[in-house]
Amino acid sequence: MTFEHELEQKHHRAEEILKRYGVFKDVSYQKTVMEAMEYSLFAGGKRLRPILLSETFQMFHGQGNVDEPFMAAMEMIHTYSLVHDDLPAMDNDEYRRGKKTTHAVYGEDMAILTGDALLNRAFETAGLAFDMAEDASLRNVTRAMQILSEKAGIYGMVGGQVFDVEAENKAVPLTEEQLLFIYRLKTSALIEASLMIGATLAGAKEESVSLLETVGRNVGIAFQIRDDILDVTSTQEVLGKPIGSDERNHKTTFVTLKGLAGAEADVKAYTAKAQEALANLPCESAFLKRLIDSLTDRIK
Amino acid sequence: MTFEHELEQKHHRAEEILKRYGVFKDVSYQKTVMEAMEYSLFAGGKRLRPILLSETFQMFHGQGNVDEPFMAAMEMIHTYSLVHDDLPAMDNDEYRRGKKTTHAVYGEDMAILTGDALLNRAFETAGLAFDMAEDASLRNVTRAMQILSEKAGIYGMVGGQVFDVEAENKAVPLTEEQLLFIYRLKTSALIEASLMIGATLAGAKEESVSLLETVGRNVGIAFQIRDDILDVTSTQEVLGKPIGSDERNHKTTFVTLKGLAGAEADVKAYTAKAQEALANLPCESAFLKRLIDSLTDRIK
Repeated sequence: MTFEHELEQKHHRAEEILKRYGVFKDVSYQKTVMEAMEYSLFAGGKRLRPILLSETFQMFHGQGNVDEPFMAAMEMIHTYSLVHDDLPAMDNDEYRRGKKTTHAVYGEDMAILTGDALLNRAFETAGLAFDMAEDASLRNVTRAMQILSEKAGIYGMVGGQVFDVEAENKAVPLTEEQLLFIYRLKTSALIEASLMIGATLAGAKEESVSLLETVGRNVGIAFQIRDDILDVTSTQEVLGKPIGSDERNHKTTFVTLKGLAGAEADVKAYTAKAQEALANLPCESAFLKRLIDSLTDRIK
Repeated sequence: MTFEHELEQKHHRAEEILKRYGVFKDVSYQKTVMEAMEYSLFAGGKRLRPILLSETFQMFHGQGNVDEPFMAAMEMIHTYSLVHDDLPAMDNDEYRRGKKTTHAVYGEDMAILTGDALLNRAFETAGLAFDMAEDASLRNVTRAMQILSEKAGIYGMVGGQVFDVEAENKAVPLTEEQLLFIYRLKTSALIEASLMIGATLAGAKEESVSLLETVGRNVGIAFQIRDDILDVTSTQEVLGKPIGSDERNHKTTFVTLKGLAGAEADVKAYTAKAQEALANLPCESAFLKRLIDSLTDRIK
């Protein structure tokens, strides 16, 4: 099976699992927000985080399907962050992936509540895994829940979001260290969480989980620097969104800090660090190895 | 000890616990949002939900202090809901309890993220309780976490919020059943959760937890109808906020539906239902009994 075919199969499975947990059957007066949640969740997306989570679960020989609620939860958290990020008071985006954003369709008040509801629903969904676990493995699930909340929170994703917004408001150039702080929290944190949670649920040892954190951190940073590069080198046709937006918004990026060649060298360096940590794990996944390269090497 | 003195002591303890979990020591570039979180959390408040939670934990002879992270978590969820509720796109309130609201001080974007961060932090904080529990009682903590997420979510508080916002946007009068739906979800849900979580953490039986849900449901509804009444009968001096706002906003309330006498009779009826369920529990709390009356009988 080719990598592309395997990725497609895994994407399909992630989509099915998300449908199982992210579609509402029990509808009452909350109809509108449930529609808005589904609209936001199923507006497309690579389902990267659920795929990563499931991959390390299998890599460490996880039993049962305790990973599935967490796969859905991870995508709900990613989605809520996009819904709130697009709000008029934030990035004020009318379109994402060629579709109207949630507030553009449902109004600003409903979009705020949709984000809140998705974040809350993530923990509600992950909490279903408690009932799927035997007593002997319950600690794996509670640890996974802790990782989820830590990496999504103020020392994780939201923390990065906050500093990013503040830096934009101030319109002062950032240092490389500050930019790395944003990339590490805003982008790496959920990738780290996905890799760590899958392994944790499978009962992997602390050292392995810690190595996966290193993998995720470096993949996230490389991914984000690649974003900086594509904003300069790609075209609107390939990327599906206007290029040159960083320059128009006077954003500090790795390209503004180090030039194109410097940024390209950094992508390679962070990717190599990720691959090195991955290679130090006691189990292997050819798919994961390949997936990391495809993320940092991507052309869109 | 008088009831008032006991309430003050419990309020003090709740405040201390909230300080332990809701003040950030490890500050980096997220400084502003951490300040905003603390500003929102310590802007005053009755700390009703943490007090209720701790009360049923003690009532069912809970051991240790596994209730404490949940007390803080409950107040964080309550606080995030106020921060988002006050936003310009929602109720657009500049003041709450005589203090500037979070967005009035920190800006709209920061207030959205502060709410997100508080909601996430609630689950992060409650998750600390996993490490405080012995294996034998870990299921109590995971069940408590499930209750927290269910009652705060789309079938709980957020669900009520959503329908409330939608009803206001449409400006169509509500039926009593619709109004009860809003009160039950928007107000009762977190009160139910507080009472249920305390007992669950202490290892109370399912029937007791279910009775406490009934207590919370009826207390929340009675509390909210009392709100409707005070908006008509009180004064700005006593209430600390302008009265008559429901009429100005053309809101359906129990007073518009059933008149003052009818609303007063309903408060009594829902309070009686709450007290009846409380009396059916296997353990007693004179304080809780008295607290419920003070909530539904209050003059501000």
